[in-house]
Formats: sequence, structure tokens, C-alpha cells
Amino acid sequence: MSRVHSFSATIQYKGTNYNGWQIQNGQAGKTIQGEINYALKKITKSELIHTIGSGRTDAGVHALGQVIRMDLPFMIEPIGLQRALNALIPADIRILEVKKIDESFHPIYNAKWKEYIYCFSTSTIISPFDRELVAQYPYEIDIAAMKNGGRLFLGKHDFCNFSCTGTEVKSTIREIFEFSLEPINGGHPWINLASSGATANYYLFRIRGSGFLKQMVRLIVGALFNLGRGKIKETDIAAALVAPYGVKKVGFVADPEGLYLAEVHY
Amino acid sequence: MSRVHSFSATIQYKGTNYNGWQIQNGQAGKTIQGEINYALKKITKSELIHTIGSGRTDAGVHALGQVIRMDLPFMIEPIGLQRALNALIPADIRILEVKKIDESFHPIYNAKWKEYIYCFSTSTIISPFDRELVAQYPYEIDIAAMKNGGRLFLGKHDFCNFSCTGTEVKSTIREIFEFSLEPINGGHPWINLASSGATANYYLFRIRGSGFLKQMVRLIVGALFNLGRGKIKETDIAAALVAPYGVKKVGFVADPEGLYLAEVHY
Repeated sequence: MSRVHSFSATIQYKGTNYNGWQIQNGQAGKTIQGEINYALKKITKSELIHTIGSGRTDAGVHALGQVIRMDLPFMIEPIGLQRALNALIPADIRILEVKKIDESFHPIYNAKWKEYIYCFSTSTIISPFDRELVAQYPYEIDIAAMKNGGRLFLGKHDFCNFSCTGTEVKSTIREIFEFSLEPINGGHPWINLASSGATANYYLFRIRGSGFLKQMVRLIVGALFNLGRGKIKETDIAAALVAPYGVKKVGFVADPEGLYLAEVHY
Repeated sequence: MSRVHSFSATIQYKGTNYNGWQIQNGQAGKTIQGEINYALKKITKSELIHTIGSGRTDAGVHALGQVIRMDLPFMIEPIGLQRALNALIPADIRILEVKKIDESFHPIYNAKWKEYIYCFSTSTIISPFDRELVAQYPYEIDIAAMKNGGRLFLGKHDFCNFSCTGTEVKSTIREIFEFSLEPINGGHPWINLASSGATANYYLFRIRGSGFLKQMVRLIVGALFNLGRGKIKETDIAAALVAPYGVKKVGFVADPEGLYLAEVHY
């Protein structure tokens, strides 16, 4: 049996036109992994390729620094592999770096922490240039209350009430290390909504943790949106974090456009 | 005959998915004007509507502040018209403001000046989040030479050599008031290419003039790109500006992704 040659890649993608990272049997739609596998098969002229992502991102979710492992049937120069991949994959996926790695490296199990960001706007008009990159939540919300509520998620908790049901995982316990929520000056430096008639209010939610369950970030953001509009109280969030299962849903799954897998740290 | 009620609107659009501003008989593809006319017909339940733009933008070209005139068969509150339009047109077109105007207002003839910007990157990798908003010119170019060359366009010139042939216009003389070319820190404040493996070099070209011929800005940018790579000399540009017709082409039509109609001033 031929030896496997393993590489890691840091990749960035705009998830708008994809059905998430992971190839899903029987499900329609393009995936990021599907595009990369297709290119690797072309480059190696072989079906003996295998890829693993550090986490699946859902349909419409973006990545600034997704880390993947690629196993190929023979050795290739990393810089050549990067160039060949970028030439073959669509422009809304870019390979930022390729490194030769040890066969023991696993992008999920070796990760020390992951950071997600969620960008949203409370404006009634979103710039045509940002609309696929920012979630719109056009309501009056209490950002200070959301900042306070976000602190409840810090530390080690059972996040079963902040996970999409039906996910197969050994444990729903995760640890959140950092959380922040700040206003930002939105938009490109060269593109801004004209001041006439529209002002853009952008906010950036940042969360860093040991790992995340399926839809966990979007459910946390949804709970904080509910808190910001006064639909739930801090005590509801606290209850959902201590009493696994059976508590009423405190959050909804916030829209995917604003979510980015920002960094995976090893 | 019923009286016409005239409105102006300032609109912003991402031109990527459109065949330019203007409805073109017999040509395939969606246009911005087509989308707005369709919405106006729905709002007024009438075919008696008429729109004029301050200038046609070509396929793939964006606008930050296109100004249009809309003639409707009856009176509507401007704020209500804005909201109804934004509810009916696609999200990559946004109406920033609607004003009631005098019937004598003409968006082309009354314009004092127009400003276009052109954003480009010389990087080999463009962020997936910017690729439809920035033109890629991945070559080593002499920006200082381009800045010097750009000054040649200032003042009143016959721009026939910087216009797409076959355009029906009374005169090809236009006046350029201002021009600048500066590096910018590209990308969204919350989205940047990871420093690993890719650095983004973004530049912003800005030009303000009395009016612009078809493809004039892109031909000027193309000439400056040629100058920046040493393919032509300043004297070639100067010759193209003093000797109408017959001089060899000094520029090519630069890609549309980087071009924005930024402002129309009345």
C-alpha cells in the first residue's frame, strides 16, 4: 500500500453559494470540500485523496481561517499545491497557505481553540456590497444587555440547549474562553452607504471556545437577540445552561450570512 | 392628458449580476433600470412610468450614488415610494433617498460633475469577500509613474481616443477636474486575508469630471496600467490626448469589477 502524504491548508471562503463545508451524501448543492476534492483529484490524477476540515460550517457560513488536512498518494511541493489548487477552485474559495504535516495531525482533535465571529446590522437598509456578509436584524436592541448576557456563556457548560438536535456527539459540554460584542464602523473603506437616508449600524460578536456544537454560535446569538429585545431575561439563559434538556428554547438560529469561522488555533 | 409627477432617487447597486443600468432592447440580461421600472409598474399599477439615469453604467459596474429621475402618473409620498421600491427590488439594489423634484430636472444635463472611483489590487490572491468589488491586476506596477501620468488627463481634452467606438455623442470633449491614486487598507474592517501566505495591496483611483464618455474611465485606467508596467510612455498618453483619432491605442478597457459611479453633483 502506498504511503500517504499529508498536508494542512488554511483556507478562506465566502459560503454564500455553498451548502457548507462538508460533502453530504444525497444532499443537493455544492460544498467547499467537494470543490477542493475535485481539484485534488485533477491535480493528482487519482481517486486516492482524502480531506478533513477542522469543523463543518453550515450553508451560507463563511470562513476566514478554516484549517483542513489533505492526504495525497504522492509528494508535491506545498507552494505548488497551493498554486494548483487556487487555479482550479472557484474564486470564492482561496487557499492561503499549504504546509507539509505529520501524519498524526488531526484538524479537529488537535485544535486548542476556535474563534467565530458574527457580524450583524440593525439598520433597515444594508449596503448592496455587504448584504451577503452581514446578518440583518433590523430592530431596536439593547446592546449593553446583550453584552451582559453574553458573559453567562463564559466557562464550562453543557450546551445541549444551544445545539441543533439530532447531532451525534459524545458530549455536549464545551468551554467558552472569551466573548465580546462591539460596534464597528462597517463596510469597505471605499464603499459606504451615502449618508442620505441610511446609516449603517454594524456590530461584531466574537466568541472563542474549546469547540462548538452544530449551530451553537447561531443559537447563542439568537438567544442574545431575544435578550436584546426583552423577549427573554438573563435568568432564562442561565436556566438553559444549567438544566440540560427540557427548558424552553431561549434562542432561535440566527441567520448564517453573518457567521465566520475566524481562526483555529493549534 | 394626466400630469406627470417627477421624483429623483439616489441609488446604490452592486452591478455584478446586471447587464448595466440601462434597459437595452434585444439584449439579454437583467438591468438595474429594468428592475426599478418593474417595481414602479407594480407600485403604480400603470404602464405610464418613465425613468432616466444620470449615466449608463456598464455590465458589472457598481454605483454608490447613481441619481435617477422617475416620472409617475400620480402623486406618492417620497418616503413611501422609497420603502415600496426597496421592498420590491432585489437586495443588491438599494434606494437611499427619494425626493419630489421639479419637472425641469434632468439627471444628465443638470449634473455639474460626476465622480468615479476604481479600486484594484495587485495581489495574486484576492479575498473571496472582495473579488466582485475589486479589479485584480496582479503585476508589479510603478504607482508613482501612474500618478504622474494621471495628471495629463486634467483639464479640457478631446477624449475620442479614450472612448468606446460607435458611441453616438455630439462632442467627445470633456473636462477632468480632479484625479488621485492612493494605496488603501483594503477589505472590510472585520474581514482580512490572514497574514499567512497573502497580503492584499489595494489602490483607489478617483476621478472627477464634467462628464464621461462610454468606457472612458476604464480606458484611462487601462492606459495608466500600461504606463505603470512600462509598456507605454507619458508622451504616448499626451499624444493620444492632442491628436484626435488615428493614434495607436494607449489603453485597454480595464475590468469592470473595480469601477463605481461614486457621486453625481448638481
